[in-house]
Amino acid sequence: MLTLDKFYHAAYVLKDVIHQTPLVHAPGINPAADIYLKPENLQLTGSFKLRGAGYMISCLSDEEKRRGVIACSAGNHAQGVALAATKYNIKSLICLPDGAPISKVEATKSYGAEVCMVKGVYDDAHQKALQLRDEMGYTFVHPFDDENVIAGQGTIALEILQELDDTDAIVVPIGGGGLCSGIAFAAKTLKPDIKIYGVQAEGAPSMFNSVHDGKIETLPSVSTIADGIAVKQPGEKTFRICGQYVDDIVTVSEDEISTAILTLIEQHKMIAEGAGAVSVAAALFNKIPIAGKKVVCVVSGGNIDVTILSRVIKRGLLMTGRSSSLCIELLDKPGQLMDVSAIIAKYGANVISVHHERAGESKDINGCYLRIVLETRDFDHIHKINDALTKAGYHLV
Amino acid sequence: MLTLDKFYHAAYVLKDVIHQTPLVHAPGINPAADIYLKPENLQLTGSFKLRGAGYMISCLSDEEKRRGVIACSAGNHAQGVALAATKYNIKSLICLPDGAPISKVEATKSYGAEVCMVKGVYDDAHQKALQLRDEMGYTFVHPFDDENVIAGQGTIALEILQELDDTDAIVVPIGGGGLCSGIAFAAKTLKPDIKIYGVQAEGAPSMFNSVHDGKIETLPSVSTIADGIAVKQPGEKTFRICGQYVDDIVTVSEDEISTAILTLIEQHKMIAEGAGAVSVAAALFNKIPIAGKKVVCVVSGGNIDVTILSRVIKRGLLMTGRSSSLCIELLDKPGQLMDVSAIIAKYGANVISVHHERAGESKDINGCYLRIVLETRDFDHIHKINDALTKAGYHLV
Repeated sequence: MLTLDKFYHAAYVLKDVIHQTPLVHAPGINPAADIYLKPENLQLTGSFKLRGAGYMISCLSDEEKRRGVIACSAGNHAQGVALAATKYNIKSLICLPDGAPISKVEATKSYGAEVCMVKGVYDDAHQKALQLRDEMGYTFVHPFDDENVIAGQGTIALEILQELDDTDAIVVPIGGGGLCSGIAFAAKTLKPDIKIYGVQAEGAPSMFNSVHDGKIETLPSVSTIADGIAVKQPGEKTFRICGQYVDDIVTVSEDEISTAILTLIEQHKMIAEGAGAVSVAAALFNKIPIAGKKVVCVVSGGNIDVTILSRVIKRGLLMTGRSSSLCIELLDKPGQLMDVSAIIAKYGANVISVHHERAGESKDINGCYLRIVLETRDFDHIHKINDALTKAGYHLV
Repeated sequence: MLTLDKFYHAAYVLKDVIHQTPLVHAPGINPAADIYLKPENLQLTGSFKLRGAGYMISCLSDEEKRRGVIACSAGNHAQGVALAATKYNIKSLICLPDGAPISKVEATKSYGAEVCMVKGVYDDAHQKALQLRDEMGYTFVHPFDDENVIAGQGTIALEILQELDDTDAIVVPIGGGGLCSGIAFAAKTLKPDIKIYGVQAEGAPSMFNSVHDGKIETLPSVSTIADGIAVKQPGEKTFRICGQYVDDIVTVSEDEISTAILTLIEQHKMIAEGAGAVSVAAALFNKIPIAGKKVVCVVSGGNIDVTILSRVIKRGLLMTGRSSSLCIELLDKPGQLMDVSAIIAKYGANVISVHHERAGESKDINGCYLRIVLETRDFDHIHKINDALTKAGYHLV
């Protein structure tokens, strides 16, 4: 049974384990509200997961500590458990599927864990972890469905209300629901009129579906760049707590997540991972009733693969009208490229790339395509350029 | 004549204009030293420039304030002047060359400036600004060679020594030299045994050359991704102060700057622009004698064009051995792609992209190239893969 004293105990215990992240004022996210960020991407290990893992491990008996802990994760939980175990000077073993990105494996090792690469996917690695737990006597650290883990994550709510006691609402990413359960329980217990909004990716709405349908449901598959919250099924404890304490759960699209990541880069020079940015995406795209309210968006992590980051930036520029990708059908005769260039130049767009190609098998043998990527000001600017090209007789594909 | 009280006055005046940035402990940058970052990329407007512009404008007479200020810049100085003027409720006009990136123009407008697009390059915009100053009575805000601007930038040194009074060395990016002059004068006056190291880009070593040769020199051209410090000639005042108070000036390469930007993203989830990252590059690549010292690297700004950011990330991954681009000469016969893939898989590298192309005009008509980009662990990993391919008879181009 969760009680508030567990959260205060967690905060006390974690004092020397975690870094207390500051609130960052973010007035540019949505001018209708007074928005702050809680940047857990700046937490040690790059995510909030250290809190839950740290408190859970601190509660183990001496005998359990002597034997060590085991977890299954290819992401933030792995790094959180690894560093927490190292801080308590105990052994940690992390099972990962063998397809896990090299960068994640190296990061987990760098925090002091031993890693066990398991052939197959996440579920195989999970089975292996449970098997090793039974054979070797390790304690399994659940990524979310554990009261001590939930209490550790909930220390974030204590910090928010300590720094900004008139917070009207907290917006929290949801994967398995540990973070949101902890924050919702602690915040609502301290301040019953505070609103808690959970946010999931459209491609992984497991808690969203489950809470809306009133029973735990399992998704057949998940697909989102927010890999940190790509969870097929909520936990039993987290489902119950979120159902009771969370005011609403909403979803955001991949494009909205990309835009949120780009917004944090440009407005706050801050890197968030997809899962960490869903709360900001919800505020940015008015998914939740925040007008006139003092709102804290929890940016839960920043461990985004840098190769994915490049793709997200491109997508975010397209989404905000600051980049436009045109495909123009041309007759393959001289002067057309010059003509199109002149129109674009007249409207003051910068050309980023040009690709000129003959049509494929299915088209007129004399036809060809001109693909141009432009740097633009906004959607209105793009609209004017497209209009001018159309008026000049060009066919935009 | 600069005196320390000007800096304390600047700090007092700027209290409600700027955001006092925190020191961030950065033990992962270079284990040989105890490194902290002074993240002026998190300053309002995304760079330190607000400090100098803010103090300079605050010192204007009421009559000068009534007439307004003018500046010439396509970058951080434009935004600093714009916001500073807006905070003092006075008019600002910024002259920009018409090729300036749209994002910079929009940012400058968003801080309340009027912009004047001038046909040509930076020097044309500069001439236009001086002409408008003379015609309209605006006060020209110099980007660096002004004692009040220098004093404003130097408030960074006061904050550093206030927070970490046993700092042994401060590492500072140098473009025109305003930031470095301010920090060097204030820090050395307060703590004469502190070391101040200036850092320039290899492609724009104007202060480096001038100080080393003992006279102001002008570069015929500059070329670097660190556009914020791409300055052809130091100022007279800044040349004199840097010559007197800076212990050494070093340069860093484009690849070193890219690696520093990537390091800040991965270790600190923080975006720095090229100019802002040169101080970290110098610490990362041991350009300065910092072993065993407590060192503060000033990260001067974060306004990097997001399209450049994608390129920097790619380059940084190559530079640190976490990405490898192979070009393999193949005979155009079946089975070779499979064979190469098998070797790569055996060594556990992830394939990012594959490009298979027939040879161009100059080669054997049956030859073709396989270009593969891999995600790798480190240079040793790359070396092993290349060795295995060579032993299997493949020719790496």
